[in-house]
Amino acid sequence: MPSVEELASDLGLGYQGDGGLSLNSVATLANAVDGQLSFLSNSKFKKHLISTRASAVILSSKDAGDCPVTAIIADNPYLVYARAATILYPQLNACSGYTPDEPIHKSAVVGKDCSLGDNVILAANSVIGDRVTLGDNAFIGPGSVISDDCQIGAATILKANVSIMHKVSIGDRCVIHPGVVIGADGFGFANDQGRWVKIPQVGTVQVGDDVEIGANTTIDRGAIENTIIEDGVILDNLIQLGHNVRIGRHTAIASSTAIAGSTSIGEYCMIAGAVAIAGHLKIANNVTINGMSMVSHSIEEKGVYSGIPVQETQAWRRNTVRFKQLDKLFKRVLQLEKQK
Amino acid sequence: MPSVEELASDLGLGYQGDGGLSLNSVATLANAVDGQLSFLSNSKFKKHLISTRASAVILSSKDAGDCPVTAIIADNPYLVYARAATILYPQLNACSGYTPDEPIHKSAVVGKDCSLGDNVILAANSVIGDRVTLGDNAFIGPGSVISDDCQIGAATILKANVSIMHKVSIGDRCVIHPGVVIGADGFGFANDQGRWVKIPQVGTVQVGDDVEIGANTTIDRGAIENTIIEDGVILDNLIQLGHNVRIGRHTAIASSTAIAGSTSIGEYCMIAGAVAIAGHLKIANNVTINGMSMVSHSIEEKGVYSGIPVQETQAWRRNTVRFKQLDKLFKRVLQLEKQK
Amino acid sequence: MPSVEELASDLGLGYQGDGGLSLNSVATLANAVDGQLSFLSNSKFKKHLISTRASAVILSSKDAGDCPVTAIIADNPYLVYARAATILYPQLNACSGYTPDEPIHKSAVVGKDCSLGDNVILAANSVIGDRVTLGDNAFIGPGSVISDDCQIGAATILKANVSIMHKVSIGDRCVIHPGVVIGADGFGFANDQGRWVKIPQVGTVQVGDDVEIGANTTIDRGAIENTIIEDGVILDNLIQLGHNVRIGRHTAIASSTAIAGSTSIGEYCMIAGAVAIAGHLKIANNVTINGMSMVSHSIEEKGVYSGIPVQETQAWRRNTVRFKQLDKLFKRVLQLEKQK
Repeated sequence: MPSVEELASDLGLGYQGDGGLSLNSVATLANAVDGQLSFLSNSKFKKHLISTRASAVILSSKDAGDCPVTAIIADNPYLVYARAATILYPQLNACSGYTPDEPIHKSAVVGKDCSLGDNVILAANSVIGDRVTLGDNAFIGPGSVISDDCQIGAATILKANVSIMHKVSIGDRCVIHPGVVIGADGFGFANDQGRWVKIPQVGTVQVGDDVEIGANTTIDRGAIENTIIEDGVILDNLIQLGHNVRIGRHTAIASSTAIAGSTSIGEYCMIAGAVAIAGHLKIANNVTINGMSMVSHSIEEKGVYSGIPVQETQAWRRNTVRFKQLDKLFKRVLQLEKQK
Repeated sequence: MPSVEELASDLGLGYQGDGGLSLNSVATLANAVDGQLSFLSNSKFKKHLISTRASAVILSSKDAGDCPVTAIIADNPYLVYARAATILYPQLNACSGYTPDEPIHKSAVVGKDCSLGDNVILAANSVIGDRVTLGDNAFIGPGSVISDDCQIGAATILKANVSIMHKVSIGDRCVIHPGVVIGADGFGFANDQGRWVKIPQVGTVQVGDDVEIGANTTIDRGAIENTIIEDGVILDNLIQLGHNVRIGRHTAIASSTAIAGSTSIGEYCMIAGAVAIAGHLKIANNVTINGMSMVSHSIEEKGVYSGIPVQETQAWRRNTVRFKQLDKLFKRVLQLEKQK
Repeated sequence: MPSVEELASDLGLGYQGDGGLSLNSVATLANAVDGQLSFLSNSKFKKHLISTRASAVILSSKDAGDCPVTAIIADNPYLVYARAATILYPQLNACSGYTPDEPIHKSAVVGKDCSLGDNVILAANSVIGDRVTLGDNAFIGPGSVISDDCQIGAATILKANVSIMHKVSIGDRCVIHPGVVIGADGFGFANDQGRWVKIPQVGTVQVGDDVEIGANTTIDRGAIENTIIEDGVILDNLIQLGHNVRIGRHTAIASSTAIAGSTSIGEYCMIAGAVAIAGHLKIANNVTINGMSMVSHSIEEKGVYSGIPVQETQAWRRNTVRFKQLDKLFKRVLQLEKQK
C-alpha cells in the first residue's frame, strides 16, 4: 500500500494535496472510495471529478484546478494510470490469479532433454514435450501443452489451456491468454481432381518479446518459412492469423479479425475488430483499419481506412450515408426519366 | 420410459388417442418410429404429419384433427417439446455424456481453502485454484481450470477444457460449453509513443443464473469494474464480449458475434450471428439485430435492425435491393446527362 | 534422405539433371540451399527460379528449360510438391511434434468398456470416457477429452486440448487441431414469455474420413438428427458450424466463417473466410463464395458469389466499384434535378 507521495515518486511525477494518503486499489471516478486511486483522461467523465471520493486522481495539469482531492499531475493520465495500476496490482503480472502449491506441480508432465530456467512454474496438468526451453520465471498455466522443440522466453506467461505446437518460439515477457493455439498447421492443400491433398506445414511461428495474445486466438505455423509476430504486438481474442502472416512491431489488432495467409501487416498499425484481410497482401506502416472492414488489396499509404472493400474513411462515410438514401435516389432518377 | 399419459400429466396437458403408449426418445415427424415422440410447430412440416410413425406428436389443437397417431395438445408445441425432451433425456442435464468413476477424480487438483457443495463432481484432470466455492451439484468437466477465488453456483456445468480466471463468479444452473474462457484480461493498453503499455484488468466477470455459454466463446474481465452477464442470457459459440460489456437478462446472441468493450446490451434482445458492435454503446431492450450487421451507434428504440452500418430493417432491405442495380443506375444517370 | 531419382520414382515422375543429389528438406526458390527441394507453380515466382540454389525444383515442362538446377517435371507442380513434402517429412503425419514416452501415458485417464486399436497413443493428461472406440494408430494428443460413446477412426489425430462430446463419431485419417470442439450442444431454445427454455440436443455429429478441422473450430451436435461432415472436407480455424449443418464431401471452408443451423452445403464447394451463412439454406455443389460475403438465401446454381448479401461475383464487383462513387452520383442527380 504505497502512499500518494511514494507512488508519485515511483512514477517520476509531482502531486498536489495530501501525499501521505495510502492507496490500496483503483476505481472509477464515480465509484471510488477512500483509499482508492482514480484517473481522468477523457473529458466526458469530467462531471464525475467534482464529486469523486477517490483518495487521489491522476489527471492533466489543465484539470488539476477542478480536482477536489489529492491529484497526481501527468501529461498522459491514461498511460500513467496504466503504470500506477501495475504498481498497485503486482500479482496480476505474475501468474494471473492461479497460485501454485509448488513450482513444478506433481501432475505436470515434462519430456526429455528440457531446459528449465530459474523460478519456472509448471502448473497442474501442464504438459511439456521434449527439448523444450523455458526461460527464467516462465509461468506455464494449468492444462497448457507445449509440444517438442519449443522455446518460451523469460517471464512469459501461458495462462491456462494454451496449446503451443512443435518448434514454436516465443520471446520474453509475453502474455498468452487461455485457449490460444500457436503453431497449428496452416490451411495448405493442393487440389487433385476435386480432392484435397494436405501440404505439410514445415515452417513454424516466431513470436517476439512483449507480445500479448488474447483468448482463443489462433496463429498458424508457416507452410515453408515462418509466421512472424514482431515485438510489442498486441492481439485481442478470437483472432485468426493464417500461415506466413507477418505482423509488424507494436501493431494492435482487435478481436475476431481474420488475416489470411502470407499477408504482411506493417508496424504501428491499428486494426479494429471483425476485420477480414485477404491473403498475400501488404499493409503499410501506421495504417488504421476501422471495424468490420474488408481489405482485398494491399494498402501502400498510411491513413485510416473503412468499408467493404476498404476506402479512405472519409470517402467511405460519405458513401455510406448515401447508401441509406439509395432507394430514394432510384425514385428520383425514375422521376427525371419520366420528365423526358 | 414414461407413457403418453404420464408425460402429458407431467406437462399439465391433455392428449387424444392411446395414453398407454411408452415413449423412449424423440425424432422428427418424417423419421420417427414406434416409441418415439415428435412435434409439429412449423406448418412447413405438416406434410410429414399425415404419414408419421411416431407414437405421439405434440401439436396445437388446430392440427389435432390431422394427426394419425396419439397427440399431446399444446398452445406452444415447440416450448412443450423442449420440456418433454428434457423429461425424456434427464442425463443430458447432468454431466453431458461424461460419466465420472468417482465424484472427485483422483487426477483432479484442488487448491487450498476451497468449499465444495454436496454432490460436486470434479472430473479427470480438472484443476481448481485456492479459495474456490463450488455449489451443490456443480459439475466441473475434464480438463477444466478454475483459478483462485472463483464462485461457481449450484448445478452449474462446465463441460470440458473450460478456463475460468480468478475471482469470476457464475450463478446457478449455468451451462458452460467446452473451450469457453471467462475472465481473461480485457484488451486494455495505453500508448506510449507507439509502444503499448498494459493496463492491469482489475475487474472481473459476474455471470448470473441460468446462463448458457457456447463453445470457445470468450468473455473478458472488466478493466476496473466488472463485465456482467445477467440472468437467463444465452450465448452461442465463438462470441467475443469485451471488458465491461453488460448483457441484459434473457438476451440471446448467436455465434461469431463480437461486442467491443463497455457496450451495454438491453434485456430481451436478439442478436444474430456474425454481428459486430462497437464499444461504449448502449442498445435498448427488445432490440433485434439481424445477421452480419455492424452497429456503430447506440440504438435507443426497440425494433429490428440490419446492415453495415445498421438501419431499420425495412429500409435496409429496400436499399440493398437497389444496391444490386447500382451499376445500371449509374448508366441511367449518364444517359440523362447526355440528353441535356 | 531420398535422392532426386528415388523421390521422382516414388512420385512416378521423370527428372532432368543430377538424380543422385540428396534431398533433406523443402524451401522456397529464393531461400533454398544445397540439399533442399523447391517448386515453381505460380509464374509470379519465376524470377526466383533463375538464381535458385535449391538442389532440385518441381516444375512444369514449359519452365524446365529455365531451371538452372535439377528439375522434377510435373503437370501440377503444387500437387506434386504436396506429395514430395509428405515423403520428406513423414513425422508430421504421425503425432505432429509431440513425442510420447509411452503409448498410453500414465496420466491418461480411460473409462470403462473402451476398445483401443493397435498402436493407439494416449498422450499425457488425455481423458477418455466410457465405451469409446479408438481405431488403430489413433493419436489422442495431450489434454484432449473424448466423452462417452465416441468412435474415433484409424490413424485419426487429435492434436492437443481437443474436446469431443458424447456419441460423436469421427472417421479414419482425420486431423483435428488444438482447441476444436465437436459435439457441443446446438443453440436450441424455445421462448417462454421472454425466457429461454433449453431444448435437449439429442443428435450428434458424424465426421467422415480424411477430414481436417482447424484450431478452435466448433461443430455443434444436432438437435434431433445429426450434424454431418462428409469425407474429405477441410475446415480452417475458428469456424462455426451450427446444429444439423451438413457439409458435402471435398468442400473447403476458410477461417472465421459461420454457418447457422440446418444449412446444407454441397460437394466441392469453396467458401472463403469470414463468410456468414444463414440457417435452413441449401447451397448447391461446386459453389464458390468469396470472403466476407453474407448468404441469406439458398444458392441453386454452381458459380462464384460475393457480397452482402451475395450476388454473382461479376455483378457484385461492378456495383462495388459504383458504391465508391455513390456520393458523387447523388450530386450528379441533384444537378440534373436543378436543370429542370
